[in-house]
Amino acid sequence: MGNKYVYGFSEGSKEMKNLLGGKGSNLAEMTNIGLPVPPGFTITTEACSRFYEEGEKLWPELIEEIHNHLKEVEKALDKRFSDESNPLLVSVRSGAVFSMPGMMDTILNLGLNDKSVIGLVNSTGNERFAYDSYRRFIHMFSDIAMGIPKRRFDSAMDEMKHNKGVELDTELDAEDLKELVERFKEIYREEKGQPFPQDPIDQLQLSIEAVFSSWNNPRAVIYRRLHDIPSNLGTAVNVQSMVYGNMGDTSGTGVAFTRNPANGENKIYGEFLMNAQGEDVVAGIRTPKSISELEDIMPEVFEEFAKVTEILESHYKDMQDIEFTIEKGKLFMLQTRTGKRTAQAAINVAVDLVNEGKITKDEAILRIEPNQLNQLLHPTFDAKALGEALVIAKGLPASPGAASGKVYFHAKDVVEAKARGEKALLVRQETSPEDIEGMVSAEGILTARGGMTSHAAVVARGMGKCCVAGCSEIRVDEESKVIRAGELTLHEGDYLSLDGTTGTVYTGEIAKVQPELSGQFGEFMSWVDEKRRMKVRTNADTPRDAAAAVKFGAEGIGLCRTEHMFFDEDRIPAVRRMIVSNNESQRQKALDVLLPLQRKDFYEIYQVMEWRPVTIRLLDPPLHEFLPSKKEDVESLAQSMNISFEDLKDTINELEEVNPMMGHRGCRLAVTYPEIAKMQTRAIIEAALDYKVKDGVEIVPEIMIPLIGDAKELAYVKKQVLEEIEAVFTERNDSIKYLIGTMIEIPRAAITADEIAEEAEFFSFGTNDLTQMGFGFSRDDSGKFLNEYVEKGIFDKSPFEVLDQKGIGKMMEMAVELGRKTRENIKLGICGEHGGEPSSVEFCHRIGLDYVSCSPFRVPIARLAAAQAVLKEKMSIHMDK
Amino acid sequence: MGNKYVYGFSEGSKEMKNLLGGKGSNLAEMTNIGLPVPPGFTITTEACSRFYEEGEKLWPELIEEIHNHLKEVEKALDKRFSDESNPLLVSVRSGAVFSMPGMMDTILNLGLNDKSVIGLVNSTGNERFAYDSYRRFIHMFSDIAMGIPKRRFDSAMDEMKHNKGVELDTELDAEDLKELVERFKEIYREEKGQPFPQDPIDQLQLSIEAVFSSWNNPRAVIYRRLHDIPSNLGTAVNVQSMVYGNMGDTSGTGVAFTRNPANGENKIYGEFLMNAQGEDVVAGIRTPKSISELEDIMPEVFEEFAKVTEILESHYKDMQDIEFTIEKGKLFMLQTRTGKRTAQAAINVAVDLVNEGKITKDEAILRIEPNQLNQLLHPTFDAKALGEALVIAKGLPASPGAASGKVYFHAKDVVEAKARGEKALLVRQETSPEDIEGMVSAEGILTARGGMTSHAAVVARGMGKCCVAGCSEIRVDEESKVIRAGELTLHEGDYLSLDGTTGTVYTGEIAKVQPELSGQFGEFMSWVDEKRRMKVRTNADTPRDAAAAVKFGAEGIGLCRTEHMFFDEDRIPAVRRMIVSNNESQRQKALDVLLPLQRKDFYEIYQVMEWRPVTIRLLDPPLHEFLPSKKEDVESLAQSMNISFEDLKDTINELEEVNPMMGHRGCRLAVTYPEIAKMQTRAIIEAALDYKVKDGVEIVPEIMIPLIGDAKELAYVKKQVLEEIEAVFTERNDSIKYLIGTMIEIPRAAITADEIAEEAEFFSFGTNDLTQMGFGFSRDDSGKFLNEYVEKGIFDKSPFEVLDQKGIGKMMEMAVELGRKTRENIKLGICGEHGGEPSSVEFCHRIGLDYVSCSPFRVPIARLAAAQAVLKEKMSIHMDK
Repeated sequence: MGNKYVYGFSEGSKEMKNLLGGKGSNLAEMTNIGLPVPPGFTITTEACSRFYEEGEKLWPELIEEIHNHLKEVEKALDKRFSDESNPLLVSVRSGAVFSMPGMMDTILNLGLNDKSVIGLVNSTGNERFAYDSYRRFIHMFSDIAMGIPKRRFDSAMDEMKHNKGVELDTELDAEDLKELVERFKEIYREEKGQPFPQDPIDQLQLSIEAVFSSWNNPRAVIYRRLHDIPSNLGTAVNVQSMVYGNMGDTSGTGVAFTRNPANGENKIYGEFLMNAQGEDVVAGIRTPKSISELEDIMPEVFEEFAKVTEILESHYKDMQDIEFTIEKGKLFMLQTRTGKRTAQAAINVAVDLVNEGKITKDEAILRIEPNQLNQLLHPTFDAKALGEALVIAKGLPASPGAASGKVYFHAKDVVEAKARGEKALLVRQETSPEDIEGMVSAEGILTARGGMTSHAAVVARGMGKCCVAGCSEIRVDEESKVIRAGELTLHEGDYLSLDGTTGTVYTGEIAKVQPELSGQFGEFMSWVDEKRRMKVRTNADTPRDAAAAVKFGAEGIGLCRTEHMFFDEDRIPAVRRMIVSNNESQRQKALDVLLPLQRKDFYEIYQVMEWRPVTIRLLDPPLHEFLPSKKEDVESLAQSMNISFEDLKDTINELEEVNPMMGHRGCRLAVTYPEIAKMQTRAIIEAALDYKVKDGVEIVPEIMIPLIGDAKELAYVKKQVLEEIEAVFTERNDSIKYLIGTMIEIPRAAITADEIAEEAEFFSFGTNDLTQMGFGFSRDDSGKFLNEYVEKGIFDKSPFEVLDQKGIGKMMEMAVELGRKTRENIKLGICGEHGGEPSSVEFCHRIGLDYVSCSPFRVPIARLAAAQAVLKEKMSIHMDK
Repeated sequence: MGNKYVYGFSEGSKEMKNLLGGKGSNLAEMTNIGLPVPPGFTITTEACSRFYEEGEKLWPELIEEIHNHLKEVEKALDKRFSDESNPLLVSVRSGAVFSMPGMMDTILNLGLNDKSVIGLVNSTGNERFAYDSYRRFIHMFSDIAMGIPKRRFDSAMDEMKHNKGVELDTELDAEDLKELVERFKEIYREEKGQPFPQDPIDQLQLSIEAVFSSWNNPRAVIYRRLHDIPSNLGTAVNVQSMVYGNMGDTSGTGVAFTRNPANGENKIYGEFLMNAQGEDVVAGIRTPKSISELEDIMPEVFEEFAKVTEILESHYKDMQDIEFTIEKGKLFMLQTRTGKRTAQAAINVAVDLVNEGKITKDEAILRIEPNQLNQLLHPTFDAKALGEALVIAKGLPASPGAASGKVYFHAKDVVEAKARGEKALLVRQETSPEDIEGMVSAEGILTARGGMTSHAAVVARGMGKCCVAGCSEIRVDEESKVIRAGELTLHEGDYLSLDGTTGTVYTGEIAKVQPELSGQFGEFMSWVDEKRRMKVRTNADTPRDAAAAVKFGAEGIGLCRTEHMFFDEDRIPAVRRMIVSNNESQRQKALDVLLPLQRKDFYEIYQVMEWRPVTIRLLDPPLHEFLPSKKEDVESLAQSMNISFEDLKDTINELEEVNPMMGHRGCRLAVTYPEIAKMQTRAIIEAALDYKVKDGVEIVPEIMIPLIGDAKELAYVKKQVLEEIEAVFTERNDSIKYLIGTMIEIPRAAITADEIAEEAEFFSFGTNDLTQMGFGFSRDDSGKFLNEYVEKGIFDKSPFEVLDQKGIGKMMEMAVELGRKTRENIKLGICGEHGGEPSSVEFCHRIGLDYVSCSPFRVPIARLAAAQAVLKEKMSIHMDK
């Protein structure tokens, strides 16, 4: 063990984190790049270990080292402990290698005693401030370092206020506080049997011991156990001199960004107050001045400050958010950190920094948090308007954006409201495919049930429409058309506002801000596209969605859900007839009606996508989703089919399932009713032939068979599809290229992917279902308990939001490996919701997928995440070397 | 290629299957062990290959070889082709290495022509028989060998019958048939432009060519492709002399078993008819005599016959089922095969054969099909009474046994009917835990929905009660209390009979036969227990089930489902209060009521199981299963809880789930409501402490946490359980040993079993859920489409009945490997329904599980299957050497 246990800030660096802790090494770093940091020193983590070896006390050599460093601080600041004119005061803070709750945090103004408090009065000219600081210090030191119950000081304070007949602490004057200091010192004596320590050295020693001891307090021990932090690491202690911005007209304090955090403009942006403390800036009692005015008031200080910002940007290579204090004309930097910024600013700053030669394109790409791009693509609430809004509930942030409108409970009411020119929100217990038209017309969607991949969430994201889902704090009564949220009851026509980015639900209407796409955005995304290996496709079911996605850079359709086309008002009767048919010829009649409509669907989508690949999934959901539930609809269907109401009702009841998600759906439908798969195949192929003939473009449709769990199952359905394709080719005397593949969304399919690849030309990972079946979590029902899982720390995130790489991801890896073993060039993609989630996209890159597919509005996010994946991989290869 | 293409039966053996085909090698074997087989020869599969090389025709050398063998046959039988007194007639049959549909099957009586037909008249003395044989031969030969359309002969036959004014073929006399022969020959000439071949050698060559050609007919080609049979194997052709049992009073025919197939008695058992053909014995026109009477009629023949049966048993080492013909005092064996027998006979024969020194114990054990034991444990319908019964539908054979009774549609009606002394069947759309008491009182259970692992099926098997489930051919209307099956309508109180072993549903009441357990059964099972490595436990929730299982040899409880105890009439109100409680203290009150009841449950089960291990699973099903659905029940619950009907209704609705199987159940309940898991833990531990104190037996309860998908989830629940156990130990100032483990039933758990094993002391594979989630097949809904999967050949068996080793089994293997990697001595078992299915039990042995657990009535089956697994493994190791 070395003999040096204490490091002045100038002796350390950010590389010495293990010895100096996180905070200490960072203070050292700032000191060393030339920032004027209030001087101080760090007592190392090794000292902590020795502290325990010594039987939990400090030893003479350490105390001497601390003394020596204290003297240097006194010298540097020209201040002295216990000085009556310009006393040195310090803060004492713990600083472990990993930030860790449960440990002693901070003691401010250490060094105050009956003498130095007078010094503080003299140097600040503010008697009230000095005594307020003193009584706070006694309270804090007694509580935190000495373990004296807080409530003793609190009741003394209350008694004082009662005696003075005042309500607030701030109503006590300097004399009152002086009295309180005396009372506090008495309490200390009562509790500890000794007077309050007047010697700052004693205060400091006791505080350092308290910090070291807190390393082993129960909360910290549990925390380390839970987070696998070795218990022998120890904590460091930071002792730093206090500086004050309220020492007269040449003192002040402020906060600033090195560039504009709203739009990225390269100009210092911030505000300050002269003769004030940090909390005054925050409290808003006085109006701060713009940072530019500092130049007029204190030109030298401003010049130094400007230089500091330049040093900071050069060093950290990013926009900084800084706190500073000027004490009697001398500038001190109290903190610097990477500045938070809007998405627009983030892009603009990154592009500017590249153009200024400060960072590389790779660094710029890694700098942007992909999810931040959401802000660029969706409107947000005006920050000021939001401040006054009343939050009534929080749900899941299912689809980003901001929306306000009158609430309606039924799709058709929303459609009618829109027709009247109203802005309407669709509010439902949960949505079903029957609600599609209402969702199209709504400004936003709110559901009480369902998770991040519920129907409402998936469809809304596809449309780029704001949605808050699974908001279990509200109760939706669709029949009586009321929402109950706690005590509050809302009726049809009342206004609500939804923030789909945070999941927050507000009452009333809130002003919105529309995003702007700058030229820098285009430049940035072109860099992104140069870097990425994976293609980015989109999940789109309509020409409109497809067009939006192409605008956002989609390179194909990875998932076109044919069932969404079935809900159109002019189709649903035929779809229903198809489902309840008792025999094949009856069913064929209904299919004959649907064929030309589906063919047109595909033709129009091909036209939008041009040469880009289009993956079309055959019918997937359980059939009863399409059936009417209302009596009158059943009656009219029975009439149109010329069967009795009872028989039809029976058929509908028989189709109902206990667990529809694991029921008669996907390829299981194609096994039972091959004629449905054949009709869809015919529509896909005929549309492609039409497109070739009429528009001269040869598209390669990819026919995707869903919910495969076994190779033989795929072989069976594939045979039906192939027969139909051959029939169409013969009839048309023409042909095109096509692919036949499958979703990998059933755990067993992943496990037996080698066999399945015998039959499949491509795999598309359906990670929604794979997560659902792999965890056994119904996505419609798991919302309520998954929240609790996250709250109780069992999961970091819902696996429906962020791909579970350890389990579900392991299945994917197996499938990739097994699939490629059988068919080396098999095309691999993902079309689950995770295809637009950055960490999941990175995982897809790592396991070698060829593309990801996501909803149109997440395409830019996926592009960025895919590029970052390449760069991170490159970095980790470098690190491994 | 060798030069020998034709083998007389005496030249071959059963080892020459590749050359002689299955049938040919078997005929050779019988010939060689000294059985009097009608002589003949086999043309090899190599000849078939050369046939194709020669351009699909026979070549001179082959024809000569055939001639030579024919001559030997003539000599052996002293018969000649085309002989007018005693003609040689032969059969021609294909005989590939693997039996294969689609190929030419059999031509009988080849050799008949205008001359030999007279010989047949002379030798049989039966003109009608001779001409009937002749017209049949022309028809068969023309159709099968020459491809002449069958219908031409059929219409000639119809015309003849019309002209004669008769209805049936048998009404035609010898003269009619003579005329028909002429007409058939004309048809042949019209079709082929040549007369019907009179030379038997021509007939034979054409037939052999037809057999060889049929190797490549489309059905055979497809069959081979589907079953991966190489297409270059070729088929052999068997030519065998015909013998006749209708050649007068010294001829006859019969069938016999070498021992009694009903009870295994070591005495030849069978029947015969003199002067008759095989079909006469089967047709039942004349009453056959018992085989013992043959001794009186033809003592020498009987003596020979008795010797033959001994040879057969010595050679095949098993009871044989044989067919024989006596032609003019000479005995011919036509067929021998292992005889089908009742379970009782199977056991008795096997034990006797061991005691007779004919087979080893190992062979005896391998001889019994485990599922056959079902017959020994359950009543069956009387075979005669069954013959007259009317089958109205077929469902799934969900739980074996036979039951008759009046149908009732509601559990309480069954209970009341039983109280009145009636035998009642419970008939439901599907059962739910609410029906338990009705199931206990019912003779048998019939459901229209649900698969082999539906609630009804699982519970019935647990009780050893007959159940037919998923009988989709009937419609059950519980409200109007009617069953509709096709045209038939049954009402409450009508009689039905159920065969749970076959899934058949009959109208009326059918007499039953009770099984007897012989002493040999006990001896046999003791051999079984000596061999097996795996332990066999049972799934039992009540002392009654547990006692039954112990009687059947269960060595512990592998799954005690605590929820089944919740449905008792005096508990369900407290259970319901527990569920709908809005706060913990309300819930705790309900739990306080349940605690002593659960403690008593466990105490009583421990008493039955004595020292044997008991695995108790914490509450598993979704809570709404316990809630009332009827309005009056909801009202009374609301009243008892002092809350409004509407509020309670709201709570109940909120608990309802879209996919309950993947919803809020299993350990997810314990995460949300730790107090429930704690109450159950307390009951388990307190009962064990009570048992230790009161009865002096220290049981080691195994607490099983269900539905775990992630190690952290298990750690969280385990912590609650551990805290409660420690609390009980402290209160009681006493302690016992216990284990804490988990089900592996979620695919992700199998995949991440290494992490889960950090927390679990044992794994129990819940293969019902693992199959359900692994395939994404809801077991309540998959019945209807899985049938179709089996019919269409996609699956051999439903994976809920027979473990899918390739996919679900692979997950189990991963879990075993990963689990043992973390915790070498982790205890591994299975408690899914597959634990009582023989091929699945064998798989469990192979992957190294420590035990299987199954319903009480399947315990003997599992014991046998576990022993067979050891023996099969030993054999395969021998074979590998």
